[in-house]
Amino acid sequence: MKLGVCYYPEHWPEEMWTSDAARMKALGLTTVRIGEFAWSRIEPEPGHYDWGWLDRAVKTLSDAGLEIIMGTPTATPPKWLINAHPDILPCDEYGRPRNFGSRRHYSFSSKTYRRESARIVEAMASRYGANPAIVMWQTDNEYGCHDTVVSNDADAQAAFRDWLSEKYQSVEALNKAWGTVFWSQEYRSFDEIDPPVATVTEPTPAHVMDWRRFSSDQVASYNAMQVEIIRRHAPGIDITHNFMGHFTEFDHFPVGEQIDISTWDSYPLGFLEQAWWDEDTKLKYCQTGHPDFAGFHHDLYRAMSKGRFGVMEQQPGPVNWARYNPAPKDGMVTLWTLEAVAHGAELVSYFRWRQAPFAQEQMHAGLNRPDHAADQASFEAEAALDILQSIGDLPETEQADVALVYDYEAHWAHEIQPQGKSFRHDELTLMFYTALREYGLDVDIVSPDQAIEGYKLVVVPSSPMLTDERVARWQRSGAHLLCGPRTGSKTVDFQIPKNLAPGALQNVLPIKINRAESLRPGVSRHDGNGSLSRWQEHVSVKPAIDLEVSGVVYGNEDATYISAWVDARYLSQIMRGVVDRCGIDGLALPDGLRIRRRGALLFLFGYCDGAETALPETALNQYKHIVLDLHTIPSRLAVYRKI
Amino acid sequence: MKLGVCYYPEHWPEEMWTSDAARMKALGLTTVRIGEFAWSRIEPEPGHYDWGWLDRAVKTLSDAGLEIIMGTPTATPPKWLINAHPDILPCDEYGRPRNFGSRRHYSFSSKTYRRESARIVEAMASRYGANPAIVMWQTDNEYGCHDTVVSNDADAQAAFRDWLSEKYQSVEALNKAWGTVFWSQEYRSFDEIDPPVATVTEPTPAHVMDWRRFSSDQVASYNAMQVEIIRRHAPGIDITHNFMGHFTEFDHFPVGEQIDISTWDSYPLGFLEQAWWDEDTKLKYCQTGHPDFAGFHHDLYRAMSKGRFGVMEQQPGPVNWARYNPAPKDGMVTLWTLEAVAHGAELVSYFRWRQAPFAQEQMHAGLNRPDHAADQASFEAEAALDILQSIGDLPETEQADVALVYDYEAHWAHEIQPQGKSFRHDELTLMFYTALREYGLDVDIVSPDQAIEGYKLVVVPSSPMLTDERVARWQRSGAHLLCGPRTGSKTVDFQIPKNLAPGALQNVLPIKINRAESLRPGVSRHDGNGSLSRWQEHVSVKPAIDLEVSGVVYGNEDATYISAWVDARYLSQIMRGVVDRCGIDGLALPDGLRIRRRGALLFLFGYCDGAETALPETALNQYKHIVLDLHTIPSRLAVYRKI
Amino acid sequence: MKLGVCYYPEHWPEEMWTSDAARMKALGLTTVRIGEFAWSRIEPEPGHYDWGWLDRAVKTLSDAGLEIIMGTPTATPPKWLINAHPDILPCDEYGRPRNFGSRRHYSFSSKTYRRESARIVEAMASRYGANPAIVMWQTDNEYGCHDTVVSNDADAQAAFRDWLSEKYQSVEALNKAWGTVFWSQEYRSFDEIDPPVATVTEPTPAHVMDWRRFSSDQVASYNAMQVEIIRRHAPGIDITHNFMGHFTEFDHFPVGEQIDISTWDSYPLGFLEQAWWDEDTKLKYCQTGHPDFAGFHHDLYRAMSKGRFGVMEQQPGPVNWARYNPAPKDGMVTLWTLEAVAHGAELVSYFRWRQAPFAQEQMHAGLNRPDHAADQASFEAEAALDILQSIGDLPETEQADVALVYDYEAHWAHEIQPQGKSFRHDELTLMFYTALREYGLDVDIVSPDQAIEGYKLVVVPSSPMLTDERVARWQRSGAHLLCGPRTGSKTVDFQIPKNLAPGALQNVLPIKINRAESLRPGVSRHDGNGSLSRWQEHVSVKPAIDLEVSGVVYGNEDATYISAWVDARYLSQIMRGVVDRCGIDGLALPDGLRIRRRGALLFLFGYCDGAETALPETALNQYKHIVLDLHTIPSRLAVYRKI
Repeated sequence: MKLGVCYYPEHWPEEMWTSDAARMKALGLTTVRIGEFAWSRIEPEPGHYDWGWLDRAVKTLSDAGLEIIMGTPTATPPKWLINAHPDILPCDEYGRPRNFGSRRHYSFSSKTYRRESARIVEAMASRYGANPAIVMWQTDNEYGCHDTVVSNDADAQAAFRDWLSEKYQSVEALNKAWGTVFWSQEYRSFDEIDPPVATVTEPTPAHVMDWRRFSSDQVASYNAMQVEIIRRHAPGIDITHNFMGHFTEFDHFPVGEQIDISTWDSYPLGFLEQAWWDEDTKLKYCQTGHPDFAGFHHDLYRAMSKGRFGVMEQQPGPVNWARYNPAPKDGMVTLWTLEAVAHGAELVSYFRWRQAPFAQEQMHAGLNRPDHAADQASFEAEAALDILQSIGDLPETEQADVALVYDYEAHWAHEIQPQGKSFRHDELTLMFYTALREYGLDVDIVSPDQAIEGYKLVVVPSSPMLTDERVARWQRSGAHLLCGPRTGSKTVDFQIPKNLAPGALQNVLPIKINRAESLRPGVSRHDGNGSLSRWQEHVSVKPAIDLEVSGVVYGNEDATYISAWVDARYLSQIMRGVVDRCGIDGLALPDGLRIRRRGALLFLFGYCDGAETALPETALNQYKHIVLDLHTIPSRLAVYRKI
Repeated sequence: MKLGVCYYPEHWPEEMWTSDAARMKALGLTTVRIGEFAWSRIEPEPGHYDWGWLDRAVKTLSDAGLEIIMGTPTATPPKWLINAHPDILPCDEYGRPRNFGSRRHYSFSSKTYRRESARIVEAMASRYGANPAIVMWQTDNEYGCHDTVVSNDADAQAAFRDWLSEKYQSVEALNKAWGTVFWSQEYRSFDEIDPPVATVTEPTPAHVMDWRRFSSDQVASYNAMQVEIIRRHAPGIDITHNFMGHFTEFDHFPVGEQIDISTWDSYPLGFLEQAWWDEDTKLKYCQTGHPDFAGFHHDLYRAMSKGRFGVMEQQPGPVNWARYNPAPKDGMVTLWTLEAVAHGAELVSYFRWRQAPFAQEQMHAGLNRPDHAADQASFEAEAALDILQSIGDLPETEQADVALVYDYEAHWAHEIQPQGKSFRHDELTLMFYTALREYGLDVDIVSPDQAIEGYKLVVVPSSPMLTDERVARWQRSGAHLLCGPRTGSKTVDFQIPKNLAPGALQNVLPIKINRAESLRPGVSRHDGNGSLSRWQEHVSVKPAIDLEVSGVVYGNEDATYISAWVDARYLSQIMRGVVDRCGIDGLALPDGLRIRRRGALLFLFGYCDGAETALPETALNQYKHIVLDLHTIPSRLAVYRKI
Repeated sequence: MKLGVCYYPEHWPEEMWTSDAARMKALGLTTVRIGEFAWSRIEPEPGHYDWGWLDRAVKTLSDAGLEIIMGTPTATPPKWLINAHPDILPCDEYGRPRNFGSRRHYSFSSKTYRRESARIVEAMASRYGANPAIVMWQTDNEYGCHDTVVSNDADAQAAFRDWLSEKYQSVEALNKAWGTVFWSQEYRSFDEIDPPVATVTEPTPAHVMDWRRFSSDQVASYNAMQVEIIRRHAPGIDITHNFMGHFTEFDHFPVGEQIDISTWDSYPLGFLEQAWWDEDTKLKYCQTGHPDFAGFHHDLYRAMSKGRFGVMEQQPGPVNWARYNPAPKDGMVTLWTLEAVAHGAELVSYFRWRQAPFAQEQMHAGLNRPDHAADQASFEAEAALDILQSIGDLPETEQADVALVYDYEAHWAHEIQPQGKSFRHDELTLMFYTALREYGLDVDIVSPDQAIEGYKLVVVPSSPMLTDERVARWQRSGAHLLCGPRTGSKTVDFQIPKNLAPGALQNVLPIKINRAESLRPGVSRHDGNGSLSRWQEHVSVKPAIDLEVSGVVYGNEDATYISAWVDARYLSQIMRGVVDRCGIDGLALPDGLRIRRRGALLFLFGYCDGAETALPETALNQYKHIVLDLHTIPSRLAVYRKI
């Protein structure tokens, strides 16, 4: 387990580098990420590379005993490159270029940009691939940030046609899959097909779904290009990409498989502010983040690259980019650090070493203030290191009893066809996760496409595009299958299944959805057991011996289906019943407390004041406390070890 | 009175057509609408028609004993046509094309599209015009849906200039009418005039009004083109167009006059969700629709084509296109069907036979589910047929005592110059209608331009552009004239009348508006009799023997003027006073109940649970109940016959 | 002190001019503004001037004894000019032209338009410059209205590059100032730089700040062009421009310095509706305007042109352009007129003589109704004249004890980088002004760049870009310096100062901001003395003998710093403490009352019913009442003279 930091030597006078490096080391940091965004310094004029400063930066940091994570600078092509090749720019739905002047101003489909990206990555990797100071490479930065996965540029249009041609082979097959007979939308050739943009009213959902799938695939193939180059020059060295929070625009699993370790950028306060939570929830957690934000993403990104994950950017204080940017409560940076550890992270890297006094992120805190004095996060990083020392060797992360299926396509499907404005797939997914975590459970997140075994329960918040294969695979694992509303409601071609929803789930549970209603705010219904809102399905059942119907919940030995958007309290009640029946030990947690096990260790995280002390003593019978009031930072966490 | 259904044979395997037709017939349906949207199947390649499938569909349906309504497919030009002629596409205010990929992707002004439309209509009409299976033709589909009346394309710009030249003859006349001396907006020739789009701040209201009038006229002339062709090939056969709910973007009266029967598409739940009602009202009626939505539109469309009207698309269950899409309460489809009958409809046609499993409307219910099983609406259609059988022969619809003037130009005028954000003409109009209907009255809707006679009361919710001729015409009819605020406040050139508001109304009522105020939300005033908000005028009066002033209401023998936006309760009180004084028998109805007479029949419609049973017995003294608890569908209606 | 009116002779038949002029004179008006917007009548065809009508208008008005204010017509270039030179049009951020059809359809950077403007101004000034009837010239009309300061047209892009080149001399200097090393935003030449528009995410703040500064400078240089021409032809004649309310898009001080007298257009109701106040405040003052709206702007524009200012357009009744347009309470037009007098205005000119029955502003009241009858404002103007007569000679306006610094760049800085969505600089500024005025103080507004002396207190609501020079200048004046949050938080290059915030303020107050938090709505904190929200800074202090720390307030003899967005009540408490300590006599006013002194005169203005009578008698010991119940208009004001 390493703590690290993000550093931009090019932002500071060279004479500061040595002392910066020494102070990093003195603080106890191990790794330092550099390089990302530095294209205009690496190649200040077309074709003229300036490696001198970067060589010296690498040496200075390395000499101080720091391990270097090298980022490729492709998130920020320089102005001269854009001026020479305006076809690099991404375009909005009207085909208007999104201009130079910030970052991520490129289309994943731009042929020019793929060529130029390969050139700069080749140049960097060939220079530093064999340098032992470099322990990890990061491709690009935060793929898709600022709504950049989808671009309606000419290269993307052409590539989309090729992608469709490859997928469907014949335009007749496409017409059938999309149902283009509806409204005379039929195509006579792939050449006739445009992206589904700026249409008079909504385009065919299958058309949009393929456009989203295509756009997602472009991210993966772009990343694969960088990975291939780096591997060639730096064989055996870890490659990562830093993903984001609450980000669903592309399918992360294929990218995660290409790399060795998935990292993500954890900004619990900024993302709370930007996300869907209601005003009361945002107010309650505005200085801590939502209790399940970091944990959920740790579990998600642990799923990407065979279990290896880390935090590449950890929020250190107020940020600059949310609508409101308060300070974390004292102790939260320490808590977030240890929470990552509890979930199995092998790296937590703070963003950034020192707050920059200029440009877009000048109001983004760092470990140090712009005047070089240590900021609050430095003290909290120290506290985290003290606690890690108290803990000693970290046990391996073990497989949980529960797997939660995270389905990027499901996000897209529900975005493309919400049917009711309040049906948000990400919100529903997190509600299911929360219901598990409030019951004291560790959770593994899995891809809908992966083989699983050893789980007692597989939770599918909502996967419209269920296939027979998926259901059979989950069944084979022996786990009980708990599915939320709209699961199995579509074919992979975005059509209603011939046997209606829940489609392939009918292979294991004899129910059929006759009708689905979306409900406006204010409509609350009660099914006798609990209340529901937003969404309700009307279900008919085939008589079966073991089918139990309880309000909106239908279940048998193999599977349980919740046919409505049930409210959080009711969901918790349903979930606990299912968990108990699966023979999993649950533990009802007090408000704002989350726990996580790592081998013999038990971590408690208090997202409400004092929550970390609120667990009944009986729950800790088999544990002894190993981290106490170590530090001046107010403690919001506790660590126990199994006796 | 016929019940029918909308059917898209091209969506289903040909082997299903026969059984579909048989089941339609068995259900008791009489008509089936086909053809609309089928251009890409009728003409799969430019100039190559494929009539085979349509011939067979017509024959199959006809052989089953069904009457066919044939739709022209011009709402959905195929991709090959758009690619060959991109000038067909409508453009937004920036001149950007609105792309292929859904429907209605054409400009009414496109010369190319008029030519191509004429070609396809000619082809269809010449093939099927003399076919006795076709009992009705429908032109296009839902003119103007998806904001397509106004298009800022090059052909529209040129046509607008021609239209202005035709209207004003000289640019001096236009300059005077528009008041272009203001802000140096004067034109030297018609060639200098552009549509009023993307201006720095708001354009001259008269300029916008003419742009709206022009755009409306383009719809009418486009429809006339189709009507002329169909009439040539199918003389004596009814022609219709299916209009929409809450749709005011073009003047429907001229189109209604061109055709033989006006039909409309009745989606009470979808339109409740989309419309202006407050959250409480939407919640109250979210599964029934607003009690006056369907009734109002029946009365409106009955006004279009000499009294002949019908429902071409009746909502059968949840739809897919509103923000929230709940299911109708059980019984509502039956109720809506009978309500159309009560208002005089000669056709109610359900949309659609079977829910499509693909494309944009896959979540739109039909009479049957995608798996072919009968859905709820089938049972409700059966119930409606049972009730119709119980009733027996339907008497003629009689003229009401009250006429309500529906003024499309008034909508545009108040949209162009609301003066207060909360002044919504459609809302005001429906408030007046509701005040009449809650008092148990049947209402005829009339065009502001038509001759009327035999009414006791003419209600004008708000007609800014009153002329001497109109006032004189209404006066001649002998009816009392009740006018709402802003009536008579403009000339036809969108100027303030020389004698100020209420303009020509001063010919019959000696009042003058000195000042008008729009009031922000939260401002509520009381005039001694009731409360008002949103809008208040300051009135001076010429002393007159018979002028009565009561708060904001001014009246004499001939006319009454309400000089404010009075609240619903106050409006009801005013309205009932006027109705009583006109010698019309009113009947205060319980909440959520509406009644409608058709000859000796009296229909009761319950929009709140049990409302259909809440009328005091005394009100039914002269009636006997003829429809009782006929069916398993919960009854929300009752039918009585005069003894 | 003169009362006047705005008149558009070209809007009315020439035969009405003589009687209009006579009625103006009879009402007691002195001045009449004409000419603005009349380009299409002055030059109906390219190069063909029609002076006849304007000559006659000037003569008619002058013959009636009225003084003329002549406006240049450049706010409304005619259609023929636009068609000949489309490069005149301003462009939005996507480079799309904003079209002809209203007004202000020109870019300040258009070279063509500068040439054409010079031509028409030269033509007018050469014709009327020496005409003794013209007592004042007005340049253009309301610079920047309708969001027209910033334009992204080709001329602006080129001029921006030149402006940057001029400012920075070398691109290296620019790169350093903007911090373009961040995200590889570096430029190799000025030619590479575009406006910061349509970027993928937010551009560098320094880039935006320079774009805003450049755009502001373009207004000033455009105005200078007109002033130079007029001065040449009309030496010694006053030149003015009519500024607006709540308008911060360009720095008004440089323009104010070019002209002789700053005037502004005072629409207290319209601007209340458009501005940031909460719903309760808007409801409370919806028929009076906010008590500090007019006073603040009088003080602001008095600061522009060496103390000379007036109101060029005074709201006379309901207007047409706000979301809601109620009538002023009776008496308010009189009150607003006298309030301008109390603050030192030398002109109050009503907009407009007669309500136009046509075009965009047809719902905008005037002194007369469209039917020529006198409207309410006529009576109120008469009442104002009666009161002025009762008062007799007006004493000079004296310097106040308190100066409030109004900083346009600060507006831009907080708009560009709000850091918290609720941090509104204009709102904060007015809160500080209100706190002073509710304590009965007269206030002078000053530019941050001007020399000051004689003040006891200088109030800086928030000036991020403080320099050593500014602080020293304020210190030298001997005044106590009261600064609000974020003062001194940036360098002039939009960077964080090396010594952190409050930057140069640390020269006089030994505090340092370690961290700043923006707080979401609902977060309210209490510092022991009062409550705060929206914004809080964390402060460290250097021990100093005289430094007093009280909650979020830090002060010594020289300066006081408020390190949070404190709530209005708390701000008032802090402000009164500081005022008292500065030896300034405050007087706590009842709700809705404002007072203003002019020499020996004391004016009371009642913005709540009866507020003008609510001052305790003791406060008026030294005064005697000179204006009593003079008129039938309800009195909302009182005037006293020192005994």
